[in-house]
Amino acid sequence: MQDRARTTRRVLLESAAHLFLERGYVGTSVNDISEHSGRTSGAIYFHYSSKEKLALAVVREQFATWPQLVVPYSTPGIPPLEKLVALSFDIAQALSEDTVARAGARLWAERRSIDAAVPTPFDAWVPAVTRLLAEARVRGELAEGIEPSGTAVTLVCAFFGVCALAEDVPGGLDWDDRLRRWWTLMLHALQPEPEPGALLARARTPLPGRRGEPLSLGVR
Amino acid sequence: MQDRARTTRRVLLESAAHLFLERGYVGTSVNDISEHSGRTSGAIYFHYSSKEKLALAVVREQFATWPQLVVPYSTPGIPPLEKLVALSFDIAQALSEDTVARAGARLWAERRSIDAAVPTPFDAWVPAVTRLLAEARVRGELAEGIEPSGTAVTLVCAFFGVCALAEDVPGGLDWDDRLRRWWTLMLHALQPEPEPGALLARARTPLPGRRGEPLSLGVR
Repeated sequence: MQDRARTTRRVLLESAAHLFLERGYVGTSVNDISEHSGRTSGAIYFHYSSKEKLALAVVREQFATWPQLVVPYSTPGIPPLEKLVALSFDIAQALSEDTVARAGARLWAERRSIDAAVPTPFDAWVPAVTRLLAEARVRGELAEGIEPSGTAVTLVCAFFGVCALAEDVPGGLDWDDRLRRWWTLMLHALQPEPEPGALLARARTPLPGRRGEPLSLGVR
Repeated sequence: MQDRARTTRRVLLESAAHLFLERGYVGTSVNDISEHSGRTSGAIYFHYSSKEKLALAVVREQFATWPQLVVPYSTPGIPPLEKLVALSFDIAQALSEDTVARAGARLWAERRSIDAAVPTPFDAWVPAVTRLLAEARVRGELAEGIEPSGTAVTLVCAFFGVCALAEDVPGGLDWDDRLRRWWTLMLHALQPEPEPGALLARARTPLPGRRGEPLSLGVR
C-alpha cells in the first residue's frame, strides 16, 4: 500500500511535469493531469491537495534542489574548479533532457502566474559555487582578484542564461557545445594559469568513483 | 487627429506594459487595460486589434528591437569591445528600469502562454555582437582563439542570464555591479592583454558624441 501510494505520487508528478512542460501552468488543468495519468482527480487532490502544490512538487523534485549540490562531488582529490565544471554539465544535461527538470524550469519562468511561492534553485547554487571557489582559493587554484561569493552569483546567473536560452538563440549549438564554449571563456579568468581545454577534458571524463552521485539526477 | 491617434496608441502601449509587467499576460484583460488607460476597449481593438497584438507591440517596442543595435555606436575610433560593453550597460539599464522593456522581457518569458509568435531580441543581438567581435579581431583587439560568431552566442546568453536573474539570485548586487563583475571575468578571456578595469572605466564614461543614440532608449 505504501508502495502503491508512492507509485501513484510518482505517476502524477511525471504526468503533471509532462503537461506543464508542454502547455505551461495556466494551460494545464487538474482534469488534464487526471486524464493523462489515468488517475482520478480525487487522487490528485488526495496526494497533492491542489494544482499549485503539485506544481511546487515538480519544481522541488529536481530544479530547486539538485541532489549533487547537497552532497557535492565528494571524492577527495578532485580539484574544486573541475568539480564545478563537471557539476554544471550534469545540471545542464538535466535541464536539456529531463522532463521533470525542464518542467521545473518552465514553471519557474512562469512563477508569477502561480499563486504560491515558487522556490528557486539559486538559493542552493550560489552557496555551493561559493564553497567550491573558496576551496580553489585555499588550494591556490583560483586567479588573483577573484572573490568567491560575488563571482558565484555572476557564474550562476550566466550559467542559467547559457542553459535556459539554448533553444531560443540562433546559432545551432547544442547545450554541451555551448557550455563548453562558455567555460572556455570563464576559465581564462578563473584559473591562475589558464588551461581551459585540459580542465574541460578532465571534467568531462567519466571515471569510476569520480563523481559523487552522477545517476541520482535520474536523467532520462 | 494623427497626433491624437499617436498619443492614444502610446497611452495604450504604456498602460498595457504596466499591467503586463505587474500581472503577466494571462492575468491582464483588455478591460483592465481600458480601465487603467482611461480609453475604451473599442479604442484598444481599433488600434491593436487584439490583446495578443498589443502584447507583441510591447515586446517589439524595445525588447526585441534595440535601436542601438540597428545603428550601433557610430562614432568612429571607439574600440569595438568598448562599444560592446557600453551597449550592454545601456540595455541592462533599460531591462532594469524601463517599464516597457521590462514588460517586454516578462512577456517573452511567458511567450508560450501567448497565442502568437513572440519575437526574441537574440535575432538582432547575436549578429550585432558578432560584428563587433569581428571588428575587434581585424584591429588586433581580440584574444587568439576567440571565434566571433560562436562567442557572440555565448555572450548573449550569459548576458541575458546576468540581467534577467538580477532580482532572483540572492547576493544583493544591483544590475550595474553585477554586469561590471561579469565583464571583468569575460574581458580576461576576450582581450589579448587583459585590462578589464581600464576598459570598463572608459566604456562607462559618458563623453559628448561618444555614443550613437544613448537617449533613444527612453529609459525612465
